[in-house]
Amino acid sequence: MRYAVLGTGVVGRTIAGKLASLGHEAAIGTRDPQATLARTEPDGYGNPPYSQWRAEHPQVRLETFADAAAHCEVVVNTTAGLSSLEALHSAGAANLAGKVVIDIANPLDFSRGMPPLLDPVNTDSLGEQIQRAFPDTKVVKTLNTMNAQIMVAPARVPGAHTVFVSGDDAEAKEAVTELLVSFGWPTSDIIDLGDITTARGAEMLLPIWLRLYGAFGNADFNFHIQGAHHSA
Amino acid sequence: MRYAVLGTGVVGRTIAGKLASLGHEAAIGTRDPQATLARTEPDGYGNPPYSQWRAEHPQVRLETFADAAAHCEVVVNTTAGLSSLEALHSAGAANLAGKVVIDIANPLDFSRGMPPLLDPVNTDSLGEQIQRAFPDTKVVKTLNTMNAQIMVAPARVPGAHTVFVSGDDAEAKEAVTELLVSFGWPTSDIIDLGDITTARGAEMLLPIWLRLYGAFGNADFNFHIQGAHHSA
Repeated sequence: MRYAVLGTGVVGRTIAGKLASLGHEAAIGTRDPQATLARTEPDGYGNPPYSQWRAEHPQVRLETFADAAAHCEVVVNTTAGLSSLEALHSAGAANLAGKVVIDIANPLDFSRGMPPLLDPVNTDSLGEQIQRAFPDTKVVKTLNTMNAQIMVAPARVPGAHTVFVSGDDAEAKEAVTELLVSFGWPTSDIIDLGDITTARGAEMLLPIWLRLYGAFGNADFNFHIQGAHHSA
Repeated sequence: MRYAVLGTGVVGRTIAGKLASLGHEAAIGTRDPQATLARTEPDGYGNPPYSQWRAEHPQVRLETFADAAAHCEVVVNTTAGLSSLEALHSAGAANLAGKVVIDIANPLDFSRGMPPLLDPVNTDSLGEQIQRAFPDTKVVKTLNTMNAQIMVAPARVPGAHTVFVSGDDAEAKEAVTELLVSFGWPTSDIIDLGDITTARGAEMLLPIWLRLYGAFGNADFNFHIQGAHHSA
């Protein structure tokens, strides 16, 4: 499968690296590839510059949002939540049309200090915003409730723990579920919350996630729904 | 210990019944005890009228909010979240002063249909509103993230699962933690999130809880933080 991973941060690199290691074609999309490659300093979170990561992952192409989206079958949004719609518009509605868009981003607003707030929240979600802005795509919200390393290596956290899936299209959710299984997620730990409006609940886990991260001092934890039973 | 449990709904009854079974003095506070006792129909959720529950729990007194608060050492707020401040004002700031207020309520707004929204949310929480309105109390937010039956009988859900505690006063949180242990919570499953502003995160679990309840068709589940390690 050919994937376009939008976003050059840790989540994008981690997902793209995992996809490549599984034998998929993966391109990372960014606003300006030359600018991304020109950076030589660590980013604001202390992550090494993209060029360093790229040297270790030569099989992952770096392209514009539009080029990456045009040549893929599935799009993964890992951009900063408040820039996600802009990034997807740069990718282009025509390049996204008919495709599954896996949305891993969280709409965290750091402009009013720490801890960040969610925008939108409660009556809307980023997942829904993307689905409304690009009605010809099939948006599936998933993986946004945990650290990037755990997304692609759930066994980092001992015991059972949960990944949520939200989306309007049953086939798209099935395809994403298969991808999650290939990442190492047992099907019993994958919970289908329902339609894309359920992304609100998944995104609203971020505030307590951030507090737990603060309380624990590390991100090697995840939510687990204990006692879950499907009524079907 | 003498407890005032504000609210005659299922959460209030369950907590008061458990406190009485543990040998505590428990009074349930309500706006108008005579009106509460006069009801003979099930409530909007299909729960039997209070008078029926009372006949099975004669040791739990039913009093006005003010009387219950005046004669207790610890207050438990189980009223509907959007009425909690009004109920606590009826209880009276003087009757609450110096006391621990355990806040179990969620500020769910059902006025715009289902699923309910949170009000406040994101930049504030009901726990913080109560602490601000009654600065002489020690508010501890806890138990609001699960079904009432699980609050007082955590073993209903097999395996480890989590109860969160938020509050500004360390001694109050310690006292509440002891109460939770007496309800059956292992200390290893009790997570201190931090100050009362962390109640935002705990209250923002409700939207996904409600979706999970919808997906599972039953409420016998709880959040578990898997891989949690305290950095201390």
